[in-house]
Amino acid sequence: MRTFFDCIPCFVRQSLESARLATSDEAVHERVLREALRTAAEMDLRRSPPAMGQHIHRVIRECTGQNDPYREMKDHFNQMALKLYPTLRQWFDDSDHPIETAVRLAIAGNVIDVAVKTQLTDAEVRESILGALSAPFEGDVDQFVSAVRAADKILYLADNVGEIVFDRLLIEQLQPANVTVAVRGFPVINDATLADAETAGIDQVAAIIDNGSDAPGTILDDCSPSFREHFDQADLVIAKGQGNYETLNEVDKDIFFLLTIKCPVIARHTGYPTGTMYLERSTASVVAGEEE
Amino acid sequence: MRTFFDCIPCFVRQSLESARLATSDEAVHERVLREALRTAAEMDLRRSPPAMGQHIHRVIRECTGQNDPYREMKDHFNQMALKLYPTLRQWFDDSDHPIETAVRLAIAGNVIDVAVKTQLTDAEVRESILGALSAPFEGDVDQFVSAVRAADKILYLADNVGEIVFDRLLIEQLQPANVTVAVRGFPVINDATLADAETAGIDQVAAIIDNGSDAPGTILDDCSPSFREHFDQADLVIAKGQGNYETLNEVDKDIFFLLTIKCPVIARHTGYPTGTMYLERSTASVVAGEEE
Repeated sequence: MRTFFDCIPCFVRQSLESARLATSDEAVHERVLREALRTAAEMDLRRSPPAMGQHIHRVIRECTGQNDPYREMKDHFNQMALKLYPTLRQWFDDSDHPIETAVRLAIAGNVIDVAVKTQLTDAEVRESILGALSAPFEGDVDQFVSAVRAADKILYLADNVGEIVFDRLLIEQLQPANVTVAVRGFPVINDATLADAETAGIDQVAAIIDNGSDAPGTILDDCSPSFREHFDQADLVIAKGQGNYETLNEVDKDIFFLLTIKCPVIARHTGYPTGTMYLERSTASVVAGEEE
Repeated sequence: MRTFFDCIPCFVRQSLESARLATSDEAVHERVLREALRTAAEMDLRRSPPAMGQHIHRVIRECTGQNDPYREMKDHFNQMALKLYPTLRQWFDDSDHPIETAVRLAIAGNVIDVAVKTQLTDAEVRESILGALSAPFEGDVDQFVSAVRAADKILYLADNVGEIVFDRLLIEQLQPANVTVAVRGFPVINDATLADAETAGIDQVAAIIDNGSDAPGTILDDCSPSFREHFDQADLVIAKGQGNYETLNEVDKDIFFLLTIKCPVIARHTGYPTGTMYLERSTASVVAGEEE
């Protein structure tokens, strides 16, 4: 997906918020803000929004001298999600439609995202997740289930810390297919990396790889050859969150996107309001499939 | 007042909104957006926020080739305010505290401001104005009345179209002092110019001058010598709206600021929440006065 004009003020706002989350040093806030403005002024709008996020977070890491400035916050969200896990597990075990419940919970976990709305309180996160089973949902779960059952090799693209704990429930449901979970190659905002996948216990249910990139999405050209091979060989990709949607929604591949719609641009693009739990099969792949 | 970091994302958002209000041409939207980003990237943050507004609206006028791109919208708000005028006049005549009512109404009129919140509906404007008599109010009206009674020469700095119709009620109350009303020297956003002051009937109650500047505030260095003379000779200045507050709140002059607090930066600066109807006597002048 290209970058829309409305993404630009949002980039600038997020850059400032991210800088403030990383450090209290106002000189760094100013450097990050000015660099975001300069970059956005010259940005090629045909690139996807996460390309900008990638650049800005490189600047933040450089300015702060920290490789993972949100580590503390990320640990906090992981621990909070792990505390919620037994409750979710119970809901899931009690459910008449376990796979739909698992899909909903995996999407609900996507609200743990400081990239769009910073400084969510624990209560906000819990409330949002607990409301997930009754929230507006758009998407064809039956089609998703059929595709999963027909797949041999599934590549599951994780998104954020915390959220990845909820992904585990869904990944368990995807068996007996061969499932590989991919995380970001390097820390960027609150996106999950290898350590977070292990904290979430993903290693107990699937193989884990990283994509070799520090973009808050999946910019294929920026990913490692090893990840690209996994991507190419998978017969089904499950991609979590807006960042993965924005970077992959025009790729010719059978992809199911699972996300919470968090911004007006994605709302307009999908046709559903912000807050919607959204499951979409890549139109690009459907069109390609129909042509076969 | 200097420009705060939080003003920057807001500048960028407002630039895009203003460009869209001025024209449907997306090429212009992009030019304005990129120019706003470039300017903000290099901006001297010791300058006040209206300096940025002045620059951006010059770019919009240049890109659209229109000297007054919001003329139609401005006429609309003037007419709407004129239609409300008899109702306000009646409230005022029925009031036990006419000057307080006039102050409240003059501040309430300040919500007619597309610079901060664009595309207000008529209903929103009416509702906001009709709610004005009971809205949270901060400020010492008695001190204001005393200062007005003691003044010989009052300079009244108007802000927006529509709002200037409500200013008329207050200006009538300021007699028999010699009152001069100053408007912007050139069209900028929805700020009132000479034509708007005449439409509002200000010429029937006071002398009107313009300040010679196209800034959405009062940047004294940018105003005409003739305006500066009026400013220097006035023994009391009444300044309407955030733009005048942001540009004059550190000037050593006896100024009463009348505004609706519309953004988080001004809310933090004044200590009162957005939506507050706010009357403040310039701290700069009080400090100067105490030193005498």
